[in-house]
Amino acid sequence: MNPFIDKLTKAQKKNSSLICVGLDSDIDVLPEHLQGSDDPVFEFNKAIIDATCNGCCAYKPNLAFYESLGPRGLETLKKTIMHIPPDIPVILDAKRGDIGNTAQKYAEAIFDDLEGDAVTVSPYMGYDSIEPFLKYEDSFVFVLAVTSNKGAQDFQYLNCEGKPLYMHVVDKVSSWNTDGNLGLVVGAPQPEQIREIRLRAPQLPFLIPGVGAQGGDLSKAVEFGTMLDGIVVINVARGVIFASKGKDFADAAAEALQAFNFRISQMR
Amino acid sequence: MNPFIDKLTKAQKKNSSLICVGLDSDIDVLPEHLQGSDDPVFEFNKAIIDATCNGCCAYKPNLAFYESLGPRGLETLKKTIMHIPPDIPVILDAKRGDIGNTAQKYAEAIFDDLEGDAVTVSPYMGYDSIEPFLKYEDSFVFVLAVTSNKGAQDFQYLNCEGKPLYMHVVDKVSSWNTDGNLGLVVGAPQPEQIREIRLRAPQLPFLIPGVGAQGGDLSKAVEFGTMLDGIVVINVARGVIFASKGKDFADAAAEALQAFNFRISQMR
Repeated sequence: MNPFIDKLTKAQKKNSSLICVGLDSDIDVLPEHLQGSDDPVFEFNKAIIDATCNGCCAYKPNLAFYESLGPRGLETLKKTIMHIPPDIPVILDAKRGDIGNTAQKYAEAIFDDLEGDAVTVSPYMGYDSIEPFLKYEDSFVFVLAVTSNKGAQDFQYLNCEGKPLYMHVVDKVSSWNTDGNLGLVVGAPQPEQIREIRLRAPQLPFLIPGVGAQGGDLSKAVEFGTMLDGIVVINVARGVIFASKGKDFADAAAEALQAFNFRISQMR
Repeated sequence: MNPFIDKLTKAQKKNSSLICVGLDSDIDVLPEHLQGSDDPVFEFNKAIIDATCNGCCAYKPNLAFYESLGPRGLETLKKTIMHIPPDIPVILDAKRGDIGNTAQKYAEAIFDDLEGDAVTVSPYMGYDSIEPFLKYEDSFVFVLAVTSNKGAQDFQYLNCEGKPLYMHVVDKVSSWNTDGNLGLVVGAPQPEQIREIRLRAPQLPFLIPGVGAQGGDLSKAVEFGTMLDGIVVINVARGVIFASKGKDFADAAAEALQAFNFRISQMR
């Protein structure tokens, strides 16, 4: 079994959780009392991780929130990743996509420098933009199929030679998955697509964003994602980490996480 | 006129060049005599910039080659950008694409922290993934339409409701271009597409990669890209910066650049 999937499914079992905590720790909206600290984003992440690491199955920092802070932001991200317990996998949300020799460098950034367990990538440039990530056979790659934003409608749903563009992505990813290290990003606000894609690709793990602040339907995401013994990770970022912006932010995050876990346990 | 386009066209005129030098300064293939220096990538870039800044119209560092070096790599990139003369625009090749609040953070990374003049983005997630970059009205955004790699064939050429996917991107980008700060990436190995897209979108500036190491046809790229008074930037990376891997690398880069400029001047 792929080491990321092994770690993920063990964490899901141990912590009774399908929830991945999105560490989209926007410095502009952190609790005020942290703003004076030397590294407010790291202080915030540390407290969030300490409060949630026994109740989630993965963490997913989005690189944008760290890159916007310059080189120091990347230091913060590295410290954050090192603070995550080794039995909880780290998905680095990067959505990269570039030609082969360049994608190789992104793969080094993600897997060698930052030591992520998994990454998200964009499909637009095709196989050779994804291949360098796949060569890290112990790691895992989620390819964007259907995203959770409004702009998903612009291209992903175009009818291309008899099926929507996103289904071409699903079928290509299935055909490329010879080493069992590929999965799909399927946005929660599109529950019908989660169902349809699960039926088409029962073997591919799904990373499902868009629950919480983005309004996706949690029950349908879980129901359709887990059909046919499908592996799913449900990402919640703002709905957990910004549950409170007061001094109780970490406790509030743990409570919000447990509320998500409880709602999911009620349905299964 | 958009300030990036103004700077670009002035540099094209002053230096009689359509060539953008791609600073894809892969640390693994730098000249050996630089490897002992404290910051070999910066030493390399500095010499390349000093040798080429009177013969090119732009520089395009691809972020992957800097991110793979960790936080220090981002410092190197910042120093590199600061070393580029202010009258030569900097295109940051990032190919980002994420949901709105996240894309906003990438825009801050590119335009506020790194102070790029222009950026490349991926279209897969649609308008709201691009909008935050467009809000920097003084800056400029090139959207991937047709890329220069083999994997371009996987999705970009699919026939979607009567036209190829890349043409949907072209038409959407044209419709979004209300502030004159949008252009397209069109790969040189697809000359027929350069022609077809130029006829369809005469007003959109093209960034054309894939000449040189990737084997694109320079004469067709220039001929079709400049039809109808079209604005083009032809990117060459390895074909210039790695023209020699000896101690003469900077002089060799300047010579290679002038050879490209000469070939273009002969055709126009």
